[in-house]
Amino acid sequence: MSLIKKKIHPNGPEMSHLIAGMMRLNDWNLTITQRIDFIEKCIDLGITTFDHADIYGAYTNEKLFGEALKERPDLRDQIEMISKCGICLTTENRAAHKIKHYDTTPDHINSSVEKSLQNLQTDYLDLLLIHRPDPLMDAAELADCLMNLISDGKILHIGVSNFTTAQYELLQSKLDVPLVTNQIEFSLLHLNPIYDGTFDQAQKLNFSPMIWSPFAGGRIFHEESGVAGRVRHHLEEMHQKYQADIDQIALAWLMTHPSNPLPVLGTGNVDRLKSAVSATEINLDRQDWFKLLKASRGHDVA
Amino acid sequence: MSLIKKKIHPNGPEMSHLIAGMMRLNDWNLTITQRIDFIEKCIDLGITTFDHADIYGAYTNEKLFGEALKERPDLRDQIEMISKCGICLTTENRAAHKIKHYDTTPDHINSSVEKSLQNLQTDYLDLLLIHRPDPLMDAAELADCLMNLISDGKILHIGVSNFTTAQYELLQSKLDVPLVTNQIEFSLLHLNPIYDGTFDQAQKLNFSPMIWSPFAGGRIFHEESGVAGRVRHHLEEMHQKYQADIDQIALAWLMTHPSNPLPVLGTGNVDRLKSAVSATEINLDRQDWFKLLKASRGHDVA
Amino acid sequence: MSLIKKKIHPNGPEMSHLIAGMMRLNDWNLTITQRIDFIEKCIDLGITTFDHADIYGAYTNEKLFGEALKERPDLRDQIEMISKCGICLTTENRAAHKIKHYDTTPDHINSSVEKSLQNLQTDYLDLLLIHRPDPLMDAAELADCLMNLISDGKILHIGVSNFTTAQYELLQSKLDVPLVTNQIEFSLLHLNPIYDGTFDQAQKLNFSPMIWSPFAGGRIFHEESGVAGRVRHHLEEMHQKYQADIDQIALAWLMTHPSNPLPVLGTGNVDRLKSAVSATEINLDRQDWFKLLKASRGHDVA
Repeated sequence: MSLIKKKIHPNGPEMSHLIAGMMRLNDWNLTITQRIDFIEKCIDLGITTFDHADIYGAYTNEKLFGEALKERPDLRDQIEMISKCGICLTTENRAAHKIKHYDTTPDHINSSVEKSLQNLQTDYLDLLLIHRPDPLMDAAELADCLMNLISDGKILHIGVSNFTTAQYELLQSKLDVPLVTNQIEFSLLHLNPIYDGTFDQAQKLNFSPMIWSPFAGGRIFHEESGVAGRVRHHLEEMHQKYQADIDQIALAWLMTHPSNPLPVLGTGNVDRLKSAVSATEINLDRQDWFKLLKASRGHDVA
Repeated sequence: MSLIKKKIHPNGPEMSHLIAGMMRLNDWNLTITQRIDFIEKCIDLGITTFDHADIYGAYTNEKLFGEALKERPDLRDQIEMISKCGICLTTENRAAHKIKHYDTTPDHINSSVEKSLQNLQTDYLDLLLIHRPDPLMDAAELADCLMNLISDGKILHIGVSNFTTAQYELLQSKLDVPLVTNQIEFSLLHLNPIYDGTFDQAQKLNFSPMIWSPFAGGRIFHEESGVAGRVRHHLEEMHQKYQADIDQIALAWLMTHPSNPLPVLGTGNVDRLKSAVSATEINLDRQDWFKLLKASRGHDVA
Repeated sequence: MSLIKKKIHPNGPEMSHLIAGMMRLNDWNLTITQRIDFIEKCIDLGITTFDHADIYGAYTNEKLFGEALKERPDLRDQIEMISKCGICLTTENRAAHKIKHYDTTPDHINSSVEKSLQNLQTDYLDLLLIHRPDPLMDAAELADCLMNLISDGKILHIGVSNFTTAQYELLQSKLDVPLVTNQIEFSLLHLNPIYDGTFDQAQKLNFSPMIWSPFAGGRIFHEESGVAGRVRHHLEEMHQKYQADIDQIALAWLMTHPSNPLPVLGTGNVDRLKSAVSATEINLDRQDWFKLLKASRGHDVA
């Protein structure tokens, strides 16, 4: 089987239903050839969208990916590339940063996008996300900057990440094009977007959210605490019924949400990606969905 | 005296200022004749609106009411009937339900409305409410389903219950007709809608909220706890001034709110209903209103 | 140097970047001549906007200010006057008030504005603010009342104070003119407006918020508690770099916010006002801004 692509907004780009997250690319210690191989295997699985950020790997991961693309420029047209900017990390690679902070000024955004394009060895990003809400975001100024990046062809679409609904509305109100996504945390151990209006806004504005940390950073598999243990226990109980592993059921649980979320998977293990692709075919029974929600909340949810 | 009717939304239906809640109809153990008598006494008092839900009495109460209407079909035109759906209870009457959950799929909503109409022995509901926000609500799909129920003449108006403002906005955004109410909990022991935007939304969108549990499930009369005791003490102090019982003053307090809320009264005791009707004539002094608010909050509110 | 004026809303009035708060005018024990002198010194500094409320000084401060204006009516055209109403204090000056409460009925608002005009010895207010959200606010009725006050020339502009975003939206929805500000609490010890949508709304609707208690009522200078101490320590560290006192840096920190807030300064000390005027020239480095935010929150903010 291969994944279908999803239009994430009526005006927006098509992205693969599952997204390959590049946050840990540096940790995988791959040669250029191995990176090319990884990208090709993702494409074969239908995972054509790759999620980057300037800061991943302390500002080094985009370059690692770009080295593969430079070797195999024919791959560029077969994939969609997301990057993010707006966070400034303290690292020896950015000695000027004395404190972790945000920067959404046009100067910073423009220079960050330039560097991402260079590092990724591409002329354009399919989607640029503002990585986190900057309390000093001048929305009108930022919107102008983003519109110019679109006019210049450097980015095709704009979105945000970790924005509250008010912050989303604010930035949207200054833009002439729709924001096409909000990349947020959501998992059986982090239910906030269900209750804080985030998913309601997604449905209302017809965009598909992207989901980071869909397995709560692995806590769902390993943590002994009450909540994680309870959730895992229920996932295990469903193993037989769905002929699926607990990671697949946890993923199916996420994807059942009517806002049509697109999970970002941070693994470099192709087998786990294959397993995730199969999970897109699971039709989770509504009552099972609520059993898992109840396990997470610790009380009846209806 | 008799109650006036209130238009609950500019496009919406007229409902009686007080609403008879049928949640405990089964507990009252009434013969069909007694049920007819109860309905007639309500009508005489001007309480013409009856609030049902598919699940009340473990899915049995609508039928109890319908048996009375079947005997006396002439009563149908003298009353307004509300029902609700979207909650799935675990009960021997619904063996397929393994866990309490929500279901707002068109299949469930349509079949629930069909059953309500049959049980209530009527061709239409004056108002259908989605009983609680379903985290799996596909708003566009649900809106289509609701619009079809209106086209088919099975329901005249649509509303919701226990929705946050974001959930309300979402469902409204997919509908071609206005939602005409949000039935919510509000009482001197549950002040949330004043502070969480719910009442602000009601005023902004010009709908009258309906209020369930206006006496906090009786806690306002019996509970010894700090808050309930404090509130009761202040209600008792006003007895003389308003020549009214504490339940009447508590009700007048609710109805003072400028969003024009319509309380749902769950009692089968006609004397208590009469007492409530009289309460609609009480003009609570603004300072007394704040005394009660202060008693509930435990500190100055200005 | 002298302050520039700021247009606080595209349709709105120009106000001085810093506002003189009259809440403690009675405490300063000034003769009429001294009050005139204070007003003139403010004007010389470019602080031309004076922030009043009916209740300040237990309903006496507006009169103190008006006595100065009566002596020197030529000053009226050189200044902008804000007043507020809607709170009812218990004080011997208002024996009818048995409990601190809110009142936003047309009767109360109209009579409060009349008294403010008389006491302030002026024909009009540049800006009237509803002082706090009244849980009994009938928004349509209040909006009519405010529109009439504008038609009658008694007030030029309308705003609010301490409103949540939902309350702001509600009142705005009933008005034919824009609300031009929300006067709120904000300081290094009170960060809420950054995170609760208040500043997002200000930017979205293009109004400048006004800020009360910019130094957290002095706690930022004196309090020994963890947060205040931590913040003060970081302010002191920046003394050298900016050649500025800690109150100036704290003020510059506030004014860095892209919503262009206008601080209200409650001091009668002209030297402190001068110092504040100089603070408007400080360009706080973005990383220093985040250092102070981090000091207040107690953890990394990015």
